[in-house]
Parts: sequence; C-alpha cells; structure tokens
Amino acid sequence: MAEKSKNLFIGGTGYIGKYLVEASAQSGHPTFLLVRESTLSNPEKSTVIGKFKTLGVRFLTLLDQVRIISAIKEAGNIKRFLPSEFGSDVDHVNAVEPAKTAFASKAKVRRAIESEGIPFTYVSSNLFNGIFLATLTQLGTTAPPRDKVVIFGDGNPKAIFNTEEEIATYTIKAVDDPRTLNKILYVRPPGNTISLNDLVSMWEKKIGHTLERVYISEEQLLKNIQESATPMGVVLSIRHSVFVKGDQTNFEIEPSFGVEASELYPEVKYTTVDEYLNKLV
Amino acid sequence: MAEKSKNLFIGGTGYIGKYLVEASAQSGHPTFLLVRESTLSNPEKSTVIGKFKTLGVRFLTLLDQVRIISAIKEAGNIKRFLPSEFGSDVDHVNAVEPAKTAFASKAKVRRAIESEGIPFTYVSSNLFNGIFLATLTQLGTTAPPRDKVVIFGDGNPKAIFNTEEEIATYTIKAVDDPRTLNKILYVRPPGNTISLNDLVSMWEKKIGHTLERVYISEEQLLKNIQESATPMGVVLSIRHSVFVKGDQTNFEIEPSFGVEASELYPEVKYTTVDEYLNKLV
Repeated sequence: MAEKSKNLFIGGTGYIGKYLVEASAQSGHPTFLLVRESTLSNPEKSTVIGKFKTLGVRFLTLLDQVRIISAIKEAGNIKRFLPSEFGSDVDHVNAVEPAKTAFASKAKVRRAIESEGIPFTYVSSNLFNGIFLATLTQLGTTAPPRDKVVIFGDGNPKAIFNTEEEIATYTIKAVDDPRTLNKILYVRPPGNTISLNDLVSMWEKKIGHTLERVYISEEQLLKNIQESATPMGVVLSIRHSVFVKGDQTNFEIEPSFGVEASELYPEVKYTTVDEYLNKLV
Repeated sequence: MAEKSKNLFIGGTGYIGKYLVEASAQSGHPTFLLVRESTLSNPEKSTVIGKFKTLGVRFLTLLDQVRIISAIKEAGNIKRFLPSEFGSDVDHVNAVEPAKTAFASKAKVRRAIESEGIPFTYVSSNLFNGIFLATLTQLGTTAPPRDKVVIFGDGNPKAIFNTEEEIATYTIKAVDDPRTLNKILYVRPPGNTISLNDLVSMWEKKIGHTLERVYISEEQLLKNIQESATPMGVVLSIRHSVFVKGDQTNFEIEPSFGVEASELYPEVKYTTVDEYLNKLV
C-alpha cells in the first residue's frame, strides 16, 4: 500500500480550509498547518485549533512579529511600532504554563524591538469587556449569570475591565503622542479596576438578588490547568494570572517605563464597570 | 497643527484590530491596512472590509499565492499544489466586474503555476451548501424562504450545490491521485446540478405550499451591480455569472483538462440537493 502523502495547508482555519484539514487528518494523511503564531492564541480561532489538535494536526508557526520587525528596520522611516499585545503587561506577570510561554513569546518580541532601537509603544489594555465583563468572567456563556457565579481563588485581587472601543480610542491617541514614546501605555482607569467579589456584589445590587458564589481554590485551579487540553489550558492559566495572582494590578506604574491612559487623556469619557453593567441588567 | 500620522495596521480585521482601525480612520488619521489579497474576497470578512471602505481605509494587499509559488519552486520537492480556488472554474466564466477581476486574479495564479512547471490540481467545487443552498440562494438570511423567493434572471440555468464536507472529502482523495495530476477537479455530481426554478419547486413540494417568485431581470441585476459598493458588487456579480450566465454548467468537462469528482470516487456517498433540503424543512 502506498504511503499517504503529507499534506501542508496554508489558510486552513478559513471557511473551507477547516473542512479540508479535518478530511485530511481523518483520512490518515500526516497533516500540517502553516499558521501565524498569533493565530494559535487568537480567541476567535481557539475552537478550530483545539479540534485540529485532537485530530493530530501539526502546526508550523510563523512568528510574524519578528518578520515585521525586520521590515521596519529595513524601511527605516517608521515613527512608532505598537506590537500585537492588548492584554496584561507581559513584563509583570506571574503566570504558570501554558500562559507562561505565551506571555514569554510576547516579551521576546519586546526585547527584539528594543535591541533594534525601533520606537515603540506597548499597549497593556487588560481585559476586554466583550469577553470578560459581558459574562462576569464566566466561561462557556455570552451573558452574565443570574443564579450562580464561579470565582477563581478568593475573589479579592483586582482586575481591569475596558470596552474595546475605548481601548481603541486611547491607543490611537497614543500613536503620535511623545509622552508614550518607548513606554508602556496602561489602560487602567480607576473606575474599571475592581475585584471579582466587588464585581459580583455590584451586579447583585443591580439585579436585586444575590447569587450563589462557588469559589475554586488556587490549588484546584492549578490542577484543572494541568489536566486541560489546549485551548482551555491557556484560557484557565491566563485567568489564574489575572484573578488569582492579581497580575494586572499588583504593581505600580513607574514613570520610567509606563503611563496611564485615563490620566493622559482625561477628555475621553470612558465607560465604567458600573455603567457597563447597567446595560446588561 | 501637526499633521496626523499615517497609521498602518497588520491584523486589522481581528478581534481588537477592527476597533483600532475604526478609531484611527474616524479620528482623521490616513489609515492603511495590510491584508492578504484573499482576505478581500473572504465572505467571513466582507462586513468588516465593507465598513472600512466606507471609512476611507486604504488596503495594501499581498498576493500570497504568488509568494507560495516562489516557496514551492525553491523547495523543489512539493508533489502537488492545490491553490486556493474552490468556486467556479475561473477559466470558464463570463463574469462582469467586479467578479471579472477577482476571477482573473485566480487565473493569473494558475498561469504562474503552469509556467513554473509546478504539479497542480485546481479544485472547482462550485457552490457551498452552507452559504447557497441553506438559504436557497437568498441574500441577507441564514434560513430558506417560506413565502417569497428572489430569482436572478429567468431561473433556468443550472448551478451546482455541494456540502463543504464532501468538497473536502473529494479534495483529499485527489491530492495523491495520478488521475487528477495537472487537471481541474470538478465537483459536479448529477444529483446536485439544478436550476433555481427546479430548486424552488423541489422546496415548495417539501414544505407543502408555493412561494411568490420575484424575478430580477439580467438588465436590472447589472444595474444593481454597477450601483453597489463592495462587497455587495462582488456578491451580485458572482451570482450573475453563476445563475444568469450559467457559468458552472455551460461547458463540457473535457478529459484533456478536467475530471469529475463523483465519477472518479463513486465510493463517496454524496448528499444530494434533495436530501439536503429534507433537513431544512
């Protein structure tokens, strides 16, 4: 019997690509997928990537940020580079695997930018409301809870919740602002910095009744992370860093390395957590 | 007043990228988006691309298939290349703009493959059921019509409707089949080749009542195409080619250039249009 060909897919997470990759893997072809490294941590692609992994598909990655750095260096006239970050500040995290490696790969891009002398702004936008606040951080749902809420750890570390629109507004203001040159721009408005316990209490007040609070201990969460397949392991370990270790708020923003967006741009009337929740009641 | 910086985005159609591009364009920055050429015709991206165009965003495209051809040539050991096609056979279409240019760009990729002597199979998979049959070809809906159906032209030319799963199955069978080497693989099973008039009659029989049939003349359709912005112009002009000109079925498959999938792989029990409609009743 002839050996089955090795199949390499480019664009395998697209509309028809998904079906092709699946058919290839299921019919016993050694199946490879060329993807940008950023695709592997893209929340919109996590379901299909997870499925491919269970089918034994192998991933060849392009660290595209590094290629972009080379292009910027060659062009020579780029005034500011904002790499793909938009989460926790990867130089101030205490994460376990697999988030640890994902954060380290973003930090590696930072070091490459700095060693090439490329002017930069790193945007630490913290949590996206559409993903985290719209669900009160609950997994596997698109609406906030009405009877039971799961809280990782003791619920006391503070996290930061921002709307996608305002993250974008702050970022675009920063691109040609000399105050953000070679700095980290933190989107950390005071009205959006809150612990899970306080967040749940705020929500309970709005809906007029209390929720059952189910606390998952750090020990249990770490065990769950170790037993999870991708992408759930990444999802849980990021939540461990944010909600148990408090990695978005457990350090001060020093002027030597960072600036805070709502201080820099007080003219932006940002949506507070309180206001955002009002729209969900 | 200082001039606003020119902003170039890479990854601007992703989760947070969409917001950033919009904020940039709306705040008056000359805004550029680097995208793969295939992204511009990707149905999953058409809403966001259309919105960006209305905001004056300018697109810089990478014709990635041509880059892939260079890589294949350099590698020297690729046994078969199946470029991103999966639609009508671009060498047998009578399309008007803007589909004409989109098809021509796929044909250009074919010519580059042939002139480099790269072994190929072009897959002409015709219409995807998930997009076309699930809606009985109606625009702006995800379900089949229950009272009124719009038909472009006189409804008599035949088109070809296939499930995504079976397109994938046929394609994977073809990758190491000597009979498909340097040929076009047409997915044109007899049970899936049907005119819009017959398709609507088949549906009416299943749901037990007739629909109001609204015919849009070719003249009117051509006028609509000319007046449409992207992406609607592309969508309508592809439909003009398929349903008015009959470009999926108005030529014979000659052995010199093509083979038909359901003949080559009779062991694949494909889902007929009739069976697919049963699941929608």
